[in-house]
Amino acid sequence: MKDKDYLMIPGPTPVPETVLMAHAKHPIGHRSKEFSAILNRCHAGLKWLFQTENDVYILTSSGTGAMESAMSNLVNPGDKVLSLVIGNFGARWGKIAASHGADVEVMEVPYGQAIDPEALKARLAADTNKEIKIITLTHNETSTGVTNPLADLMAVIKEHGALSVVDGITSIGAMDCPMDKLGIDVLVSGSQKGFMLPPGLAFIAVSERAHEARKETKYPGFYFDWVATRKSYNQETTPWTPAVNLIVALDAALQMLQEEGLQNIFDRHTKNAQILREGLKEMGMKLFVEDESIASKAITSVYPPEGVTVPEIRKTMKEDYSIVVANGQNDLKDKIFRMGTLGFVCERDVLTALASLKATVKKLAK
Amino acid sequence: MKDKDYLMIPGPTPVPETVLMAHAKHPIGHRSKEFSAILNRCHAGLKWLFQTENDVYILTSSGTGAMESAMSNLVNPGDKVLSLVIGNFGARWGKIAASHGADVEVMEVPYGQAIDPEALKARLAADTNKEIKIITLTHNETSTGVTNPLADLMAVIKEHGALSVVDGITSIGAMDCPMDKLGIDVLVSGSQKGFMLPPGLAFIAVSERAHEARKETKYPGFYFDWVATRKSYNQETTPWTPAVNLIVALDAALQMLQEEGLQNIFDRHTKNAQILREGLKEMGMKLFVEDESIASKAITSVYPPEGVTVPEIRKTMKEDYSIVVANGQNDLKDKIFRMGTLGFVCERDVLTALASLKATVKKLAK
Repeated sequence: MKDKDYLMIPGPTPVPETVLMAHAKHPIGHRSKEFSAILNRCHAGLKWLFQTENDVYILTSSGTGAMESAMSNLVNPGDKVLSLVIGNFGARWGKIAASHGADVEVMEVPYGQAIDPEALKARLAADTNKEIKIITLTHNETSTGVTNPLADLMAVIKEHGALSVVDGITSIGAMDCPMDKLGIDVLVSGSQKGFMLPPGLAFIAVSERAHEARKETKYPGFYFDWVATRKSYNQETTPWTPAVNLIVALDAALQMLQEEGLQNIFDRHTKNAQILREGLKEMGMKLFVEDESIASKAITSVYPPEGVTVPEIRKTMKEDYSIVVANGQNDLKDKIFRMGTLGFVCERDVLTALASLKATVKKLAK
Repeated sequence: MKDKDYLMIPGPTPVPETVLMAHAKHPIGHRSKEFSAILNRCHAGLKWLFQTENDVYILTSSGTGAMESAMSNLVNPGDKVLSLVIGNFGARWGKIAASHGADVEVMEVPYGQAIDPEALKARLAADTNKEIKIITLTHNETSTGVTNPLADLMAVIKEHGALSVVDGITSIGAMDCPMDKLGIDVLVSGSQKGFMLPPGLAFIAVSERAHEARKETKYPGFYFDWVATRKSYNQETTPWTPAVNLIVALDAALQMLQEEGLQNIFDRHTKNAQILREGLKEMGMKLFVEDESIASKAITSVYPPEGVTVPEIRKTMKEDYSIVVANGQNDLKDKIFRMGTLGFVCERDVLTALASLKATVKKLAK
């Protein structure tokens, strides 16, 4: 049915009508006082959401652009980067670092698991000459639905002293990720996730330590350069023409999030994920991440029931019930499917999805 | 008056209601067949607009992101880049190239003038060892309202053999810029210009020669990398989550442009700029670019009349007549103002602007 599809993928996520309407207005000039006022409100709202006193820069790009920004501003050819990988998106950090000439070491666990802080501690203890300059990690791994024990990992990294670069793309605005309290140096996210916006904006919060490290970078590039970005930020503008409409929409979305309140947002995501997981288990389905302590509050990965395939489930869910769920990625393709409860999602949406999935499985198992 | 402002700046430019409405729809999944169909139509439309058989990639970024993409994919540290500068945006190429380690030589003329093909010919004739790898140039210089003699310059560059990288940000969709006919290697543009879209997308057309040169690039970066981009393009998708809503809007805008027809689009811009220039002269105002042969069809720069300042004109135009015109940039700030007739602009808009400017000057001259 045309225009009826409901997205339960990890992104894009549903967008509130209030935000879509703000987004649909005619663009205004980006060098105007009106736009600076909007930008200032957005910067304040982002600092609140990232729980930081650091600058949070708005980039016109995908979330991957913010990841690139982190690496292009920090990496010199030959720099040692330790990349903690628990899925596809964690692996992306290493690829980006390598594209800027970094010497990348990967610490990986089987997909579906999280990084063990003790294992990280042992690896960093062996780095007696402090050769590791940067450690990249993922808060919530979108490809598997696993959330790393971020606070414990950050405590280990802080003891070592390397720069910590964290992917918060599917966690910010859904799960507690207090940048300053945890001592994160660089934290990135993207608009089409917990922010309840269409894709097209990315966000990057940068600590003073990271700005200091930037000073030693030989080939920082231009578009994502923090020096130009910070200079414009301090002048209440952006260095290049930004995605004006998306920023007007961000202003509306941040206002909605602030009205709801940080703890309420986290509680809502926790509750919705819990209801989804319980409902799936009641239907006899096997969860990909059984350990509750590392199961994501934003994305739930599930095995299909016996005798039914992932492509069949996705096809029937979409064609008969207008609900879009995601496939697994790479080795997990057609082995699991993923349901997002990230962003503008209420309990009714979860019940609707469960009812539709139940009907889907019933139909397919015949 | 709230919501009444009409933009006559060089970007963002006015957006048709049809396009805004397409842009306001709920985002769809970017890994769906529906989205691939939209993307394919956009790619075909862009090839038509760029007048090329080369791939035209859609980037989620500002136009400056497409400029970065050109340099990060082509420049190795130490490479010699000749940058032809006739204004602020021309100068940006050199800065980007330098940020990737290029050895940049600038060939500059006073702002308000174009590059003389004979002067370029002489410079390139002196490059007997063919040390110049890349030549950057601007088709239409947004900061001054000057259009370079692109066909003549391209003929000289082709004779030399360097890679030509052209900023078509304010010319594509407004002025004739036939990529293949002129032999341009890399051509970039941005959505908030002739494309009649909000800002947030950029476009880059890449020749086979440029793709060949990319193979030798040591630190190409990741987000803008042509190898990943081309691979996804051939699979009818994008490497990262794109600005889905803007691409749906692009589909609508390209359909409008195709219905109008290429020559009609160019003729409309030529006519509107002509009417604006004639009207300004009739009012006794002095044009910044008097030479008709290099005067832009997209942006017209004007000196304020005797006894009236640029800030006064901009303030009155905006506050009393809800028309936004742009200031000059850098050395030209407060010396000239700039009026855009780029994109979704008809003759009525030009007459309205002239009438409002006339009333503004009358009011201020009292």
